[in-house]
Amino acid sequence: MKPRDTQTFLIAAIIVLIGIIAYLILFPCITPADAPPEKAPDARDTLYQVSTINALLQSVYDGIVPISEAQMHGDTAIGTTDGLDGELIGVDGGYYVIRSDGVAYPLDGTITTPFISATFFDPDFTIPVNDTADISGFGEQLESGLPSANMFYAIRMDGTFDYVKTRSMPKQTRPYPKLADVVAEQSVFEFHNTTGTIVGFWSPDFVSGFNVPGYHIHFITDDRTAGGHVLDLRMNDGEIKVDITPDLYIVLPTEGDFYHVNLTEDLSSALESVEKS
Amino acid sequence: MKPRDTQTFLIAAIIVLIGIIAYLILFPCITPADAPPEKAPDARDTLYQVSTINALLQSVYDGIVPISEAQMHGDTAIGTTDGLDGELIGVDGGYYVIRSDGVAYPLDGTITTPFISATFFDPDFTIPVNDTADISGFGEQLESGLPSANMFYAIRMDGTFDYVKTRSMPKQTRPYPKLADVVAEQSVFEFHNTTGTIVGFWSPDFVSGFNVPGYHIHFITDDRTAGGHVLDLRMNDGEIKVDITPDLYIVLPTEGDFYHVNLTEDLSSALESVEKS
Repeated sequence: MKPRDTQTFLIAAIIVLIGIIAYLILFPCITPADAPPEKAPDARDTLYQVSTINALLQSVYDGIVPISEAQMHGDTAIGTTDGLDGELIGVDGGYYVIRSDGVAYPLDGTITTPFISATFFDPDFTIPVNDTADISGFGEQLESGLPSANMFYAIRMDGTFDYVKTRSMPKQTRPYPKLADVVAEQSVFEFHNTTGTIVGFWSPDFVSGFNVPGYHIHFITDDRTAGGHVLDLRMNDGEIKVDITPDLYIVLPTEGDFYHVNLTEDLSSALESVEKS
Repeated sequence: MKPRDTQTFLIAAIIVLIGIIAYLILFPCITPADAPPEKAPDARDTLYQVSTINALLQSVYDGIVPISEAQMHGDTAIGTTDGLDGELIGVDGGYYVIRSDGVAYPLDGTITTPFISATFFDPDFTIPVNDTADISGFGEQLESGLPSANMFYAIRMDGTFDYVKTRSMPKQTRPYPKLADVVAEQSVFEFHNTTGTIVGFWSPDFVSGFNVPGYHIHFITDDRTAGGHVLDLRMNDGEIKVDITPDLYIVLPTEGDFYHVNLTEDLSSALESVEKS
């Protein structure tokens, strides 16, 4: 070819290559035609749960999912960590564990959890709460504002509370005792006129056996230094932000104690004593 | 520039553009840096479920999810269609409904379902079954081969059965009667020395209230023309293919009857009569 022809050829090649680049940018994720049409759930309106509450009651305390993985399923969470080492709370994407010394420790993503509930918190409506004398009053006002008792809700309150009573539990070692026996060793903390955040979930009655029916809430102070599983609370005025969470995604352990523990017993009275006292 | 310089420049440009193309091909799905790190579950090992069995027992029969949507969550399924119009079965991605005339109709993707369980069937192991005199014997041999009673399993059998007894139910109109009352009107079909496919699920005890504990299987003939919900079966030799399904994704209705129906009753005896007789 003459230099001029070569030049024309090279310019044509550049135009073709630019065309290929434009195509690749505009269609960056081309699915092969023979790929099955699989669909995964939307993470934001899904309540993500690891294991079941009855497995925890029956001493399945080994962590199976790293916190970094749970964080991909939610910015708001409650649960515990490997070996039942404290009360876990996730707020605004930051995950903390309140250990039995009452201190809230930021969680490293490599720490694992044996039981957690998480979701991305996008509030749909609010419920005003006034002059709640105790946690039962809080529960009643919450439930009177829910549109259905058959739905899952993520809940959050930010503000100042007259009184919050929390607990945490000491890390366990094998052989693991039952959760009801660990609760006998729990540390209890009282906060007066405290500013902070409560997060948790309200679940329908039919979760009995795999999660906690009704409300289950954890607390962390505004400076994210203390908190725990809420046993009682008292407040004047506030509002509960509620996120309707109609989809549930449960991940069961595929190895370890879970496979062989007895999950056929009715543990609802054990659960009642563990969660509420 | 001289022609030679222009040529060199153009060749350099081509090399750069080829480099960009290689980069775009190797990293086709670059996530924007500010995208939240959300993670949705893997569809293949997830048991996808619409609504709950107790809602179906309590007459929540309006379809809420199109079959085309369910098919994105599994190639293998059991359930029913809008208005309780027959017994649904999904096999190899094809979805059928066996209506009360006993005929299996291929399902249009726009038909909706009020209750379905589906997954992508990837068998992990097989359980041999021999000389099962009835469905209880089948259930015993199945359960003796499961590694844990705390796990979900999708199951499938292809082959020739000495006897299969199935049923289907007539489409309902409002006001919807309870499922236990509809079962009184069911059509029963008997197949002798029939070749076909059984698909279904085995679920742990703790699903009580939201799905069927133990096995729940539907049948379709080899020519995909007849079948139904399996009430009884008898066979000589065969094997059950089992897919361990450790993740569960439940989608609850966010409107309609579901919100207001009573899901707090223990309906296990109603379920027993509906599923097994």
